[in-house]
Amino acid sequence: MKTRITELFSIQHPIIQGGMQWVSKAELVAAVANAGALGFLTALTQPTPEDLRKEISKTQQLTSNPFGVNLTIMPTIKPVPYEEYAKVIIESGIKIVETAGRNPEPYMPTLKAAGIKVIHKCTSIRHAIKAEKVGCDAVSIDGFECAGHPGEDDIPGLILIPGTTQKLTIPVVASGGFGDARGLVAALALGADGINMGTRFLATEEAPVHHNIKQALVDADERQTTLIFRPLKNTARVFKNNVSIEVNQIEKQPKHSFSDIQHLVSGIKGRQALEQGEINEGVWTAGMIAGLINDIPSVEQLVSRITTEAENIIKNRLNNIIE
Amino acid sequence: MKTRITELFSIQHPIIQGGMQWVSKAELVAAVANAGALGFLTALTQPTPEDLRKEISKTQQLTSNPFGVNLTIMPTIKPVPYEEYAKVIIESGIKIVETAGRNPEPYMPTLKAAGIKVIHKCTSIRHAIKAEKVGCDAVSIDGFECAGHPGEDDIPGLILIPGTTQKLTIPVVASGGFGDARGLVAALALGADGINMGTRFLATEEAPVHHNIKQALVDADERQTTLIFRPLKNTARVFKNNVSIEVNQIEKQPKHSFSDIQHLVSGIKGRQALEQGEINEGVWTAGMIAGLINDIPSVEQLVSRITTEAENIIKNRLNNIIE
Repeated sequence: MKTRITELFSIQHPIIQGGMQWVSKAELVAAVANAGALGFLTALTQPTPEDLRKEISKTQQLTSNPFGVNLTIMPTIKPVPYEEYAKVIIESGIKIVETAGRNPEPYMPTLKAAGIKVIHKCTSIRHAIKAEKVGCDAVSIDGFECAGHPGEDDIPGLILIPGTTQKLTIPVVASGGFGDARGLVAALALGADGINMGTRFLATEEAPVHHNIKQALVDADERQTTLIFRPLKNTARVFKNNVSIEVNQIEKQPKHSFSDIQHLVSGIKGRQALEQGEINEGVWTAGMIAGLINDIPSVEQLVSRITTEAENIIKNRLNNIIE
Repeated sequence: MKTRITELFSIQHPIIQGGMQWVSKAELVAAVANAGALGFLTALTQPTPEDLRKEISKTQQLTSNPFGVNLTIMPTIKPVPYEEYAKVIIESGIKIVETAGRNPEPYMPTLKAAGIKVIHKCTSIRHAIKAEKVGCDAVSIDGFECAGHPGEDDIPGLILIPGTTQKLTIPVVASGGFGDARGLVAALALGADGINMGTRFLATEEAPVHHNIKQALVDADERQTTLIFRPLKNTARVFKNNVSIEVNQIEKQPKHSFSDIQHLVSGIKGRQALEQGEINEGVWTAGMIAGLINDIPSVEQLVSRITTEAENIIKNRLNNIIE
């Protein structure tokens, strides 16, 4: 398949594995690259810029295909040395960066001067317009269905994708709710030039999370996610388990405060859930696409299946309808 | 275009104008039928079964193409003579009925004995499975994006449509968030055999509502709807105006009751808003597709544009991507 996204990033398939905290490491990203799609390491999964340098180097040893690094700028209690992470990205020869979290404008001169192509991930049409304006090369637009932070507008991809693509001239990647060929063709019909998948890549052989997590995604139906942090206007879609249900119950109480849920949503517990497979012991993100995930293939099998089936949907199903 | 839906209902295009309270009257439904799509009168928009008989007859005079009647079974304070409405539908020679509101099982023997094809509108995969089981000929699956009642699961079409089509053998119509060719092709890619549109048909020349309503839909962006009645577990997506914003504010108060909002959401005021164009004086339903509506065409122009452009998307855009 050939789209503006495959051409922009010199990849074979219009499929992106976006940054996932604690998950987007060398093994997964290299497998995605070797399958002809585009994977992103997450800079902040690495505790220091030097660790990121090692992870990039490790990935480069595992693949000769292009891959990128995600740099998510978030308000944090402990200051994060973003500039140093960016420096390592540039020095390591990375040519594709996914920005997220806030307006990437401050980082654009440095990244562009290094010949880096920037795809900005955002959750609203107005932020996508802004990203184009500040010089991003592409936008990844993340709908209400997505894992993690969908924003506060609750606009699903069916509306968000055409609403964005009709306003932008740079290519748009559809994100949130994608995991198979049907979704890819739908995204292309809605004007996107590719799809981004997170949760679907989590349920692959190469994803560095415990098997229980992958199995939980296979077992999940479409109602197995829930939104937390809405009262904080920092909404996140997570797997619906004992912990996130308890968080929701506390959040419904009119006089609760963040400290009432803090111990439930600690990052350490979420990470433990992913790594040790304690699926009910912490809060971990999952998108609605979990409801459509039925197996744990290798990354290569997954990417190849999606593109082959997508071609079939266009060649056979859709062309037959208009004949 | 030829799908299982065009064949089932003997229509030219896989486009349905589903029942809309106060709106689905003879003029609109006949215009939709004459454009080669499938329109539905709403039985309960007519105050008595005899009024419905007259409205059907009026529609039959305006078109010789197939059209249907929507029968929505809802809990009401005043008992509704559903059996008598059904009797009128059968006696008038109507051969297509859209059921909604609750399980159509009690009405199936009567409707099927009259040779009527039944399409059931619902908002969840489990209810769609049930509809197939009780003998419906098709299902219209309504996602989170839709105007009116999206249910309580908040599952958008990108997930709900493939999730439904993969579980059913009868044809599925995608509803909620549709209004143009991009959406139609996306729905077909996701496994649906057609689309249902409500809000988009509201902004047509023939829709029997005030011009101000149509213009409000043209002016709206994708964030111009809001959900009310969530605390009652009877969620409805409506146009975001002064009244619905006030309803939301009251609903946020922990100790409110329905009587606090009853005067704001009265059906009379909503109907007045639609008919007299007082867009800020009552609560009226609108779907998120409002954000993608930019004009007020005739029904014929709209249907013809959608099908022509959909063929172009498949023939040119999609086929070029896989070449």
